[in-house]
Amino acid sequence: MASSGSACSPTADCRMEAEFAAPAQVEAAGRQMAEFARHHCSEGRRVVLVTSGGTKVPLESRTVRFLDNFSSGRRGASSAEYFLDSGYAVIFLHRHHSLYPYSRKYAGVNLLDTLRASPEQGPGCISHRVEVDQSKLPHIVSVLQRYQAVKEARLLLAVEFNTLSEYLHLLKAAAQALSPVGSNAMFYLAAAVSDFYIPASEMPEHKIQSSNGPLQITMKMVPKILSPLVKDWAPRAFVISFKLETDPSILVGRARRALDLYRHQAVVANVLDTRRGYVVIVTRDTQTELLLSDEEEQREVEIEEKIVSNLSTAHTSFIEEQG
Amino acid sequence: MASSGSACSPTADCRMEAEFAAPAQVEAAGRQMAEFARHHCSEGRRVVLVTSGGTKVPLESRTVRFLDNFSSGRRGASSAEYFLDSGYAVIFLHRHHSLYPYSRKYAGVNLLDTLRASPEQGPGCISHRVEVDQSKLPHIVSVLQRYQAVKEARLLLAVEFNTLSEYLHLLKAAAQALSPVGSNAMFYLAAAVSDFYIPASEMPEHKIQSSNGPLQITMKMVPKILSPLVKDWAPRAFVISFKLETDPSILVGRARRALDLYRHQAVVANVLDTRRGYVVIVTRDTQTELLLSDEEEQREVEIEEKIVSNLSTAHTSFIEEQG
Repeated sequence: MASSGSACSPTADCRMEAEFAAPAQVEAAGRQMAEFARHHCSEGRRVVLVTSGGTKVPLESRTVRFLDNFSSGRRGASSAEYFLDSGYAVIFLHRHHSLYPYSRKYAGVNLLDTLRASPEQGPGCISHRVEVDQSKLPHIVSVLQRYQAVKEARLLLAVEFNTLSEYLHLLKAAAQALSPVGSNAMFYLAAAVSDFYIPASEMPEHKIQSSNGPLQITMKMVPKILSPLVKDWAPRAFVISFKLETDPSILVGRARRALDLYRHQAVVANVLDTRRGYVVIVTRDTQTELLLSDEEEQREVEIEEKIVSNLSTAHTSFIEEQG
Repeated sequence: MASSGSACSPTADCRMEAEFAAPAQVEAAGRQMAEFARHHCSEGRRVVLVTSGGTKVPLESRTVRFLDNFSSGRRGASSAEYFLDSGYAVIFLHRHHSLYPYSRKYAGVNLLDTLRASPEQGPGCISHRVEVDQSKLPHIVSVLQRYQAVKEARLLLAVEFNTLSEYLHLLKAAAQALSPVGSNAMFYLAAAVSDFYIPASEMPEHKIQSSNGPLQITMKMVPKILSPLVKDWAPRAFVISFKLETDPSILVGRARRALDLYRHQAVVANVLDTRRGYVVIVTRDTQTELLLSDEEEQREVEIEEKIVSNLSTAHTSFIEEQG
């Protein structure tokens, strides 16, 4: 059967290596992540890999057109902040140009609308100082101070991907880099990864011409690499996947199916329309609903604060159980 | 034949109205654009509509997945600046989150890396001033001053689209808004518009399930609305389309074919790999290559400066010819 076949670990790993070319940056990124994990583990910190943003799937080899997944990266970026607040060191594997921790609070603001230049008498000539209008960037002082503290302590390592192929290879490199950290590593796989792709061998080289009539695309299923990740690449880690659906009626069933198939620790299940205020954390034995009250929404509490709090507690138990 | 059929103006217009739902904002945007055009025309300014960025084509009606076109919006955003420098009022019809005039110069810079907070003794309490580190934002004072001058003079009207459907309806609304300005209007259609889409009637409501096996997508051709734009919506305007190819050998041929088919004034033809340094402006009688010399590349001259200079001169001749 196709579904049990696709969960077979050597197949998924082999298919990935055979069908997706490794990007040039993967080796250097792997070394950097391993060094980051080693350093923070030796200082007694847990390390979480947060993946974030959608993946791009080219339809042509010199790419003009591509298939994309909906994701601003908001959930991944805000979760990374709460993990940092909880004492984790964070590897942030994110889609190029998706939201970034801290600066995500000002996404959509035009930088030039927040600045004002004023002349300043320098030694001999007039120069300008450029200052932020703080009413345009709420809480900028505290956000900036937190961002700079995280940066100085090197608690956040950012790694970028763009295409599905880059994501797959960087995730494997991350898993191998975190494997030595054992159960102190968490994988928080919030990226919106495409389920489908066009193999390079079947891809036209040049831009598809619209004058040739309607476009027929056949896409293959992407290998399910959660399977080798859990079984082979980082077998002792605490692994969380995400499930986004538009139909609430199939949500928890699909989360349970994923847990049965991949044998990882938890699925954060959510529905597109309500994803900012409601999720269900599904484990083999439990099902925990997290939601924001009206009062919490007014205070601008974020659901990610609750998700991260729930999972870091569960991670503590997991580490204790593993001895 | 399909290709001559698709250039038939009533058909393209009717198909667009029938197959693409008009977005809620289109009427208000149309009124705003008409008022903008009327005002600037009465002050003796020409008006250019610059379209910019790629379009999104949903694959599901509650959209998780979509087809996208490669485009950062760099060409549209920089061209808008040169049109403003040349005395045009600019309607900037752009993809949400694509590059924006002036702020595009700092795209990819993390805002928080450019700021520093320093304590300041206020009346009674310590507050902070937040200042820009100008070495991180080159030329920020002059860019900011130019941005603010354009904003105060209301020379730039920004209108946003996201999906193909929004783009099509907003372009029609823009054409109708600019029609009263006659030959003083230019259309500079730099957006990367999808050639294909899935009709709403054939789209699944919910997220496509990957467990159902390979994905088969059949996409219809998008109606060629350049045809009704030139013939019906703004028949006296100066209209420029863009042609991006990956194969240089078919470039000029395809540009000429478009001119024959739509009877507009010029095509800016370019090849994906060399688009930042080389374009050909093709008109019915001429073919002008524009390129950057090594020395110009070193001075960071942009090809858009040359494109805009060429086209605004041609626009002057066009206006004179029209009497």
